[in-house]
Amino acid sequence: MAIQKPSIPKGTRDFSPLETSRRNHIFETIRGVFGLYGFAPIETPAMENLSTLMGKYGEEGDKLLFKVLNSGDFTSGVDFNGPQGLDNPPALAAKICEKGLRYDLTVPFARYVVQHQNEIVFPFKRCQIQPVWRADRPQKGRYREFFQCDADVIGSSSLVCEAELAAMVGEVFHRLGIKVLLKINNRKVLYGIAQTMGCEDKMVEITVAIDKIDKVGMESVCEELAGRGIGQKSIDILKPILELKGGNTEKINKLRTILKNAPTGLQGVDEIESILSYSTALGVKTAMEIDLSLARGLNYYTGAIFEVKALDFQIGSICGGGRYDDLTGIFGMPGMSGVGISFGADRIYDVMTGLGLFNDRDLASTRAMIVNLGGAEERKSLEIMASLRRRGIACEIYPEAAKMKKQMEYANRRGIQKVIIIGSEEMQQGCATVKNMETGEQQKVAFGELTGAI
Amino acid sequence: MAIQKPSIPKGTRDFSPLETSRRNHIFETIRGVFGLYGFAPIETPAMENLSTLMGKYGEEGDKLLFKVLNSGDFTSGVDFNGPQGLDNPPALAAKICEKGLRYDLTVPFARYVVQHQNEIVFPFKRCQIQPVWRADRPQKGRYREFFQCDADVIGSSSLVCEAELAAMVGEVFHRLGIKVLLKINNRKVLYGIAQTMGCEDKMVEITVAIDKIDKVGMESVCEELAGRGIGQKSIDILKPILELKGGNTEKINKLRTILKNAPTGLQGVDEIESILSYSTALGVKTAMEIDLSLARGLNYYTGAIFEVKALDFQIGSICGGGRYDDLTGIFGMPGMSGVGISFGADRIYDVMTGLGLFNDRDLASTRAMIVNLGGAEERKSLEIMASLRRRGIACEIYPEAAKMKKQMEYANRRGIQKVIIIGSEEMQQGCATVKNMETGEQQKVAFGELTGAI
Repeated sequence: MAIQKPSIPKGTRDFSPLETSRRNHIFETIRGVFGLYGFAPIETPAMENLSTLMGKYGEEGDKLLFKVLNSGDFTSGVDFNGPQGLDNPPALAAKICEKGLRYDLTVPFARYVVQHQNEIVFPFKRCQIQPVWRADRPQKGRYREFFQCDADVIGSSSLVCEAELAAMVGEVFHRLGIKVLLKINNRKVLYGIAQTMGCEDKMVEITVAIDKIDKVGMESVCEELAGRGIGQKSIDILKPILELKGGNTEKINKLRTILKNAPTGLQGVDEIESILSYSTALGVKTAMEIDLSLARGLNYYTGAIFEVKALDFQIGSICGGGRYDDLTGIFGMPGMSGVGISFGADRIYDVMTGLGLFNDRDLASTRAMIVNLGGAEERKSLEIMASLRRRGIACEIYPEAAKMKKQMEYANRRGIQKVIIIGSEEMQQGCATVKNMETGEQQKVAFGELTGAI
Repeated sequence: MAIQKPSIPKGTRDFSPLETSRRNHIFETIRGVFGLYGFAPIETPAMENLSTLMGKYGEEGDKLLFKVLNSGDFTSGVDFNGPQGLDNPPALAAKICEKGLRYDLTVPFARYVVQHQNEIVFPFKRCQIQPVWRADRPQKGRYREFFQCDADVIGSSSLVCEAELAAMVGEVFHRLGIKVLLKINNRKVLYGIAQTMGCEDKMVEITVAIDKIDKVGMESVCEELAGRGIGQKSIDILKPILELKGGNTEKINKLRTILKNAPTGLQGVDEIESILSYSTALGVKTAMEIDLSLARGLNYYTGAIFEVKALDFQIGSICGGGRYDDLTGIFGMPGMSGVGISFGADRIYDVMTGLGLFNDRDLASTRAMIVNLGGAEERKSLEIMASLRRRGIACEIYPEAAKMKKQMEYANRRGIQKVIIIGSEEMQQGCATVKNMETGEQQKVAFGELTGAI
C-alpha cells in the first residue's frame, strides 16, 4: 500500500497530553459542580436520526448538519435521476442518509426527555458533557467538533432553578479562577419593550438586531431596525431603554415605569428581581448585571436569559442559557417548562490559556520517574515503583536501560518533577537517590521514606 | 410541524443517570490507573479522513465504516452515471464522503504518532478513552457506538512495557472488584509452532482456526485446519501442544523441548518468561496463565498477546492487547515497536451488573434534598443548602413548594438518602429535621451540625 501523509479533517483537532489534561481539568471542574448541585449525568448517541435534527436549527442549521451515509448499498431503492435526485442535493441527501451527528445537546435532550418520560423523575435535573459537530466554515476559535457542557432543569417553572444555575456559574468560574460578569435579561421584558414601542409583531427582528449591539454599536442597531420597518418613534422609545444606566435595583425601578402598560414585561421584571433575590440567598458572589441589550439568538427562549463574560480577557461569551417553555412540544410532549445553561469549554480553555490559569505541574500525570539501570537494579526499581503506586504516587520507570542522558532528557521533556536513581550503591545502602528536576538538588532517601520525599 | 415520535438509530444507546454514573465509575477507575502508571491522555477527532481508515481493518472492516457525507453540494463534480458511479456504490461512496467515523483508537493513534512525531517524547505512553463506531449488525452486547479505553507504549521494545500493562490490568480489575484470569501467549511462539508443524506459510490460517478453540472445541479446529490444507501429520503435532497442561513453568519447559528447532519460537518462550518475571517484580497478583490457543484475530500483532477473562461471569474477553512492530509503517514511520491494551467498557459494565458490583448509593450524585416549604423557610433553606455545598455535600432543594408527598416521592425515586426539612418550628429552634430515607428515622440537628449528620 502507498504511504499516506497523515492529516485530519479541517476544523477538527488532535489534543496532546498537555491539552487533554487541561481540558479534562475544565470538564472535571464543571462535572464536579454539576454533581454538587444535584444534576444527574446522561449521555446520548453521537448519531441521531436526521428526522430528529432537521428543522430544529433553522434553514442555516440544517445545512450545517453532518449527515452519515446509510450503510450497505445506499443507492438501493433511490431514484437518483428523479425529482428528489441529483437535481436536488438536499432532498437526495435525506434519502441516502438517515442519520446525522448531533448539532447540540439541547435537541437530543428534548428527544431523550420525551422518549424516556416514563422512567424520568420530574423535575429532571440533568447534565451532559459531550462533543457536538457542525459543518461550519472553520476559523480561529470555531471548530467542527467541540464539546458542550450543559445543565438543565425541566419540569419546573420555579425561578429557584434560574438562581441555582447562576450559583453554578459562579462556582465553576470561581474554581477555574476566571473572574466573570453574569449578564441577565428576560425575554418577557424584551416583549414588553417591543409592546411599549408598538411593535410586538416585530419581536424577532428587534431581538436579532439588539443582540448585535456589543459588536456593531447602537447606531448600526438603530439603522438595522429602521431597515426592518421599525418607525423612528419606536426607535426613540427603544434607545434610552437600551442605554439605561445604574445598578440592578435602579434599572428594575426604571423598567417598572417604562413598562407600566405592558403586563408581560412587568412579569419579566418581577422574575429578574426574584432571581436576583434567590441568588443572594444562595450566596452567589459573582457580579450579576441586568443587561437589556442581551437577547440571545435562539428563539426557543421564553423567560430569563443569561450570558457570561470573562472580565480580564477579550472573547465572546463563555457560557449562556435561558428558560424555554416548550422545548419538547415538537416531540409530542407540550407544556414542559425548563431552564438550562451551557458552558463553552473551548473558549474557557482559551481564556485560561490567555490568563495563564492552568497549573500544568499539577496536571502532569507522572510525579516521578525511576531511571532504568537494567539487571538487579531494574528489578529492585520495579519493586520500589510498585510500592510507590500502592501509595497513590503516579510514577513510571524508563522502559529500558538506555543511556542516563537519554533517560534524564525524557523525564525533563515530560515535565516529571522527581527522578529516582537506584544503583548498586543505593541498593547496598537501602536507599534511592532522588533528584529534583527543577532545582537540580539530589538527596539520598531510604526506601521506606520515598513516599514522603516525592 | 408534525409531531415526531422520538427514537434513536438502531445499535445506539441513551444512557440514563444511573447508567452514566456506573459507566463513569468504570472510566474514572481506568483513567485513574492509567495515570498512576504514567500514561498520558490524548484525544483524536471522531471523524478521520476516510483515506486514513480505509484498508486498515480488512475488506469486512471497510464495509463497517460509517461514512460522513461531504457538506455543501456533495454531487458537484461527481459522475454518478460513470464507471465509479451508481453501478459501484463503494467507489461512489468514497467520492461523496471524504470523512468517516473512527472504527477503533489504534489507527487514529498510529496516525497521531506519525503526524506529531516531532512533538512527542518517545517512548510515548499514551492512553485514550473515547467512543468508536462500527456499522455492525446490532445484537445483544454488540453496539454501533461503544467506548474503548486504550493504553499503549510506542517506541520501546522492552518487555517491561508488557509487564506494566499486565500490572495495570490487575490493578483496574482489582479496583472494580472483578476477579480475572490474564491469558498470555506470543505470536512468535505461534510461528514456532507452525514451523514445527512444517506449515510456517499457513501461519494466518492456523491462528484464525485455533483462535476459535474456546467456542467450537478441538475437533472442529482440527477439521477446519484439514479443510485449509494442513496435513494430518502437522495436525498431530499441533494437537498435543494446544492440550499442554500444567503451570506456566511446566509449559515453558515443555515448549522449549517442542520448539527446539524453531529459534523464533524459542525467542517467544523467552519473552513470555521475562514478562512473567517482570510481572512478579511489579507485584502483580492477578493470575497469569500461558494459553497456547490464544491467537487474537488482529494481524498486526507480532509479539506478546493478552486476553482477560472474568472468572465469575460468562462473557467473552473483557480486555485484550499485544505487541505490534509496525503499526505506524503505513503512515510512513517504520520500525516503531509498541505494545498496547484495550479495555472493553461495555462488557465490563455487563460483568459488574451481572455480579452486582456497582454500589449505586455511592454513585448517586445527590446526598441530601431539602424540602421546599416556600416563603421565609425556602429562603433559609437556600442559605443552608449553600453552606452544605461549601462543605462539599452534593445536595439540592425541591425547586417549588409542592405537596410534601410529591417532594418525598421525588427524593425516594432519585435514591436520595437524606431529606432535610426546615419549617417554621425548626427555624425558631435553629435546627433542621433530617430524615433517613432508608430507615425512616428522623432527628433534629442544629444548623451548624448538619454537615456531620449528612
